[in-house]
Amino acid sequence: MKDASFAEFLLIRIDRSADQPMNRQIYLIIRDAILARLLPVGFRMPSTRELAKGLGMSRNTVTYGYDQLMAEGYLESRTGAGTYVADTVPDQFSQRQFPKAAAPDGPELSARGAKLIAQAGASDLQWGAFMPGVPDVTQFPHRVWSRLQNKHWRRSRAELLTYGGAGGHAPLREAIAEHLRIARSVNCRAEQVIITTGTHQSLDVVVKLLGEVGDSAWIEDPCYWGTRSVLESTSIKPVAIPVDDEGLALQRADLRRPPRFICVTPSHQYPLGMVMSLSRRRLLLEYAATQKAWIIEDDYDSEFRYGSRPLASLQGMDRHDRVLYMGTFSKTLFPGLRVGFIVVPESLAAAVSTAVSELYRGSQGFLQAVLADFMNEGHFASHVRRMSILYAERLQALRSAIEGHFGDSMAAIGDEAGLHLVLRLPPGSNDVAISRAARAAGIIARPLSGYYAGPDTARSGLLLGYACVPVEQIRSAFDTLAAIIREHCGMPFIGSCSIPVPPAYGTLPLRSASPRSRAPS
Amino acid sequence: MKDASFAEFLLIRIDRSADQPMNRQIYLIIRDAILARLLPVGFRMPSTRELAKGLGMSRNTVTYGYDQLMAEGYLESRTGAGTYVADTVPDQFSQRQFPKAAAPDGPELSARGAKLIAQAGASDLQWGAFMPGVPDVTQFPHRVWSRLQNKHWRRSRAELLTYGGAGGHAPLREAIAEHLRIARSVNCRAEQVIITTGTHQSLDVVVKLLGEVGDSAWIEDPCYWGTRSVLESTSIKPVAIPVDDEGLALQRADLRRPPRFICVTPSHQYPLGMVMSLSRRRLLLEYAATQKAWIIEDDYDSEFRYGSRPLASLQGMDRHDRVLYMGTFSKTLFPGLRVGFIVVPESLAAAVSTAVSELYRGSQGFLQAVLADFMNEGHFASHVRRMSILYAERLQALRSAIEGHFGDSMAAIGDEAGLHLVLRLPPGSNDVAISRAARAAGIIARPLSGYYAGPDTARSGLLLGYACVPVEQIRSAFDTLAAIIREHCGMPFIGSCSIPVPPAYGTLPLRSASPRSRAPS
Repeated sequence: MKDASFAEFLLIRIDRSADQPMNRQIYLIIRDAILARLLPVGFRMPSTRELAKGLGMSRNTVTYGYDQLMAEGYLESRTGAGTYVADTVPDQFSQRQFPKAAAPDGPELSARGAKLIAQAGASDLQWGAFMPGVPDVTQFPHRVWSRLQNKHWRRSRAELLTYGGAGGHAPLREAIAEHLRIARSVNCRAEQVIITTGTHQSLDVVVKLLGEVGDSAWIEDPCYWGTRSVLESTSIKPVAIPVDDEGLALQRADLRRPPRFICVTPSHQYPLGMVMSLSRRRLLLEYAATQKAWIIEDDYDSEFRYGSRPLASLQGMDRHDRVLYMGTFSKTLFPGLRVGFIVVPESLAAAVSTAVSELYRGSQGFLQAVLADFMNEGHFASHVRRMSILYAERLQALRSAIEGHFGDSMAAIGDEAGLHLVLRLPPGSNDVAISRAARAAGIIARPLSGYYAGPDTARSGLLLGYACVPVEQIRSAFDTLAAIIREHCGMPFIGSCSIPVPPAYGTLPLRSASPRSRAPS
Repeated sequence: MKDASFAEFLLIRIDRSADQPMNRQIYLIIRDAILARLLPVGFRMPSTRELAKGLGMSRNTVTYGYDQLMAEGYLESRTGAGTYVADTVPDQFSQRQFPKAAAPDGPELSARGAKLIAQAGASDLQWGAFMPGVPDVTQFPHRVWSRLQNKHWRRSRAELLTYGGAGGHAPLREAIAEHLRIARSVNCRAEQVIITTGTHQSLDVVVKLLGEVGDSAWIEDPCYWGTRSVLESTSIKPVAIPVDDEGLALQRADLRRPPRFICVTPSHQYPLGMVMSLSRRRLLLEYAATQKAWIIEDDYDSEFRYGSRPLASLQGMDRHDRVLYMGTFSKTLFPGLRVGFIVVPESLAAAVSTAVSELYRGSQGFLQAVLADFMNEGHFASHVRRMSILYAERLQALRSAIEGHFGDSMAAIGDEAGLHLVLRLPPGSNDVAISRAARAAGIIARPLSGYYAGPDTARSGLLLGYACVPVEQIRSAFDTLAAIIREHCGMPFIGSCSIPVPPAYGTLPLRSASPRSRAPS
């Protein structure tokens, strides 16, 4: 390539309409030509003066590119002899010496990655009628929050802005421990409370710390999709155990193969909503103590109970330090806060705290300090009280809408606590198709069958979250949904439906258990 | 137990000085007695009237406890026949039927958990002279930040407060892509930028998605401790490759065993600080393309360069989509922000985005929106500029202090970029002991040897972070440290030290490489 043709080589590649400055374009074009070996090692570059002339540009523009290329090692200058393309081709290990890749054009995801993506459970929408598990974030008292934030910024404490450590901000751990002792009968001191960015992180850290690759964990069937995803991503094998109206319905055969972890939602089973009975609780606690298994109690939304007493946590009944209790502010405040916590036995507190620093570098100290003040000044408790009243109204509106459309012909279950209920559909109805049709009509109605381990145990239903839907929107959104359900389930009549509750449900009396065998729901 | 003795049983257990209300105490004492089987199944409880009398308390106080115990299933009332302890002992699966636990009293941590804790690298202190890797968080423009926060609260957009999804807040992804294209020559569109809570999470998600249990990853020796911890916690096997002045010093034998991942810090090797040479960059890119390996480029602090040109990223040179580029706001803004990002090839963007939602439920939308504004209004760029000037002054102060104490006898390396330098110590000196003595004197000086894979390759030195230390404190803090170094290394004279640079360093010319073989440092 002669100097004139080199200028031409550049000119046809320069984009005068681009945002990128001309000097940077020249640098990039030459660099890419060297990387692509269009300009071979030892090629003599034109002088900056000649090239500037050829391009019709200022010499400074060209010099910038040359200097940068020299600095990065693409060009080298030989004293008194001009500038050359440097020898940076990695020929000391010729490419021919590399072995061929085992799977040259196979799928790029690992098997565990492909599985994670294939069974992804997170919805791409996280707001609107009837998204389950989402509180009304617009009600969050942001003025109070801003005031507390500004107060902390004024103090400007470096330790709140740098990497977090030691299990989280001490005053927040105190405030959470206090709240849990009173509201959830959790038996703990502040040192046992470890702050995380939410339940996923809480679960991740304890199973990594306490479980080996290949260990098993009992999970409820159906259960929260995130539990399965996190367990599998940490190489823990989930073993799905069906639930009945008392919680995990264990068989003798299950008990003969003790798992390392037992993942349960005893206060409000997710997603069905029943409460684990007292005898099941005692069974699990005794079993875990004998087998040295860990019970992971996910107490995600039991702050919201409508008309029934608050229930003690499983952790509070444990006398053998086998329960790891997970909680979150995602339901009580807002999910985007990303603050959760785990309460561990005293003997594990130091290790879990270290592991959180080690694996995630702790979480946000500043945010934690603001949240501690928010709790200590009573805003947390009053916000939960206010939201309980609001959500109770919304629940009532949804119950009325369901009854108005379907009378007694469809059962809404799990509606005595939390942020959602489950509307059961007749067996054989396709809840996935209904969900898809609802989505096309602007309604989120997640299919119950998707929460089961597989088609053999799956039942048909819809999860309907009411907490984030204003009362006035509930009726009309449910009207739309009801029409879709009717169409899909072959129910032509509006108002009074005539199909009876399918007999299959008779064997699962979720709302009529005797007081002797179960805690209140 | 008669009614009178039952009242006594309670009275000796009630703590009248406790904060807990009396009715709650009565509930808990009876509950625990049932759980401990002190009160057997079928035990007839005294009436609330009798018990209240026996305790000398109001009947309401006793009734509360009874009602709660009844609601939770501990007590049952038989119509007209009083109240009894319910049968909730889980005898259907008698404890004798459980197999014995395999390891009844072994260590509770898993092998992977125990290893994580044993090699924990996170410091319990994260602020003060000379903490490496920590910027001056007190300089953060919090008034600007508060103003942007308040603006977003006023708009109160629900989608910013609920669960995050789809790779992060779109305007932030745009702003980061723009910054990376200009400042780091990263070749990307906004869709390729996935927001995480930091580099640990970025690494966690890609190795889970792209690597199987047991796959290997090359890491630099020495390297950042967090890389090793995250890899091992995801069951990826780290293979330590020594670094020389050009970066990873690969041998032919290494190349014959292709890893799944190649973890490097090409712009500013952590912790030694040199820049990867152009020929090594080209070698890695070609090798990764042939072997279908993934290069994970950790570009943690290269926004701060003192007196040398900004360097292009490795990602920007890649023509085969084999580089995953990780960045963080921990060094440019503050670590407690917990915002990082990963730039992935377009073909992986959807999967990585889904995996972030699935494994961590996304990160904080509200925070991301504020950060996007902060960048778009130019505050990010101006803060980085202001900090570069400040850190350059502090670096100069530390260099002068080192020279004042040790002249040419000790080499400070890796000081042309970033937030720390490495002070090399004579071979054989015990940097761990020096670090411990420094800590006792209130100085953080992390031992270089701790960043190596093992004692065979480890060299002695100290990581000294200057970014978070005001100029006026640097001199006196280093005076203290210098005295400790002198004592431990047998160097009696203050001011002019006479020991020569140890010959071993001559083989590792970290600051005198030819321009041909390496990019500028």
